[in-house]
Amino acid sequence: MLLFWRKGYEATAMSDLVEGLGLGRGSIYAAFGDKHQLFVRALARYLDRQNTLLRTAFADEGPALAQLRDVLDRLLAADAACGNAGCFSVNSIAELLPHDEDVARLARQSLAAAEEAFTRQLARAADEGDLSPSLTPEAGARLLLTLVQGLQIVRKVDPDPAHTAATLDSAFTLLAGQPASLTPTA
Amino acid sequence: MLLFWRKGYEATAMSDLVEGLGLGRGSIYAAFGDKHQLFVRALARYLDRQNTLLRTAFADEGPALAQLRDVLDRLLAADAACGNAGCFSVNSIAELLPHDEDVARLARQSLAAAEEAFTRQLARAADEGDLSPSLTPEAGARLLLTLVQGLQIVRKVDPDPAHTAATLDSAFTLLAGQPASLTPTA
Repeated sequence: MLLFWRKGYEATAMSDLVEGLGLGRGSIYAAFGDKHQLFVRALARYLDRQNTLLRTAFADEGPALAQLRDVLDRLLAADAACGNAGCFSVNSIAELLPHDEDVARLARQSLAAAEEAFTRQLARAADEGDLSPSLTPEAGARLLLTLVQGLQIVRKVDPDPAHTAATLDSAFTLLAGQPASLTPTA
Repeated sequence: MLLFWRKGYEATAMSDLVEGLGLGRGSIYAAFGDKHQLFVRALARYLDRQNTLLRTAFADEGPALAQLRDVLDRLLAADAACGNAGCFSVNSIAELLPHDEDVARLARQSLAAAEEAFTRQLARAADEGDLSPSLTPEAGARLLLTLVQGLQIVRKVDPDPAHTAATLDSAFTLLAGQPASLTPTA
């Protein structure tokens, strides 16, 4: 997973995998099939870890918007562990879509799962009066999910964590909307 | 440019370039240097076109926020012309950063130019009362620029133009903030 994540699909040669895994070429083919099958399994493993974090991170109580921000910080910090390689999923979408149908399927499933988790959390935030009345939870979730994909690109160019945090601060300020006392009562 | 844009850097073989350009291998090396130099020139050309659009698109009068939205629609539509290949710049950042210093330099310059253009435009929007008082023009520009990078990823997975438009609608609704009559007078 780390090899493909750092170098991308095409740039990772079978010889890199032989060296990285400490297995012979024949053993790799026997255990995992070809390079593409091994790549798809590595990406699926990466996405499983992200989805597990999303499934387990949210409590059913406590300030929902703050929890969501905390989870995004943890997701981004987890990716920063792989040097400045960005997000394995974003990198793979950029490199291999639209033509790689296996990667497209994994990406669709993973974005849909994240969108659903964000939507649930923003619906709770709305109940708590912490979501701008201009947005539905669904629209807020799509906006935030898209922004996170963008952050994974932008921080490969500008890796300053303070800049990433400032962008998230702006987004969450807008998502939270005006203080309740300033919003019209419908 | 279209070849590298569609396939990415690594997946584009010298034989693809020979066939695509209708030139012999020796002529390509003589005219452009190696594959990497040709790639960097293709990416620079792509970014030049984007930057020209950004430099020339904004008028000095008229509703600034609406002009900005129109320019983003045009940028995204221009990319859709290359099938569903996404944005050549985003794809290149995802595939080749952090290790490709030439691509990193081009990406830094291009994002900085876009951020500056967005900031100027949002400063005009603020003068017109169309920017949320929660954000500075600089913060709004970074947020919008990051979102656009994210849209280039998300729409490779979900190419429905209505979904892209809906995400931009949400962002611009939040950027515009509450109607002026509801905001506090400082």
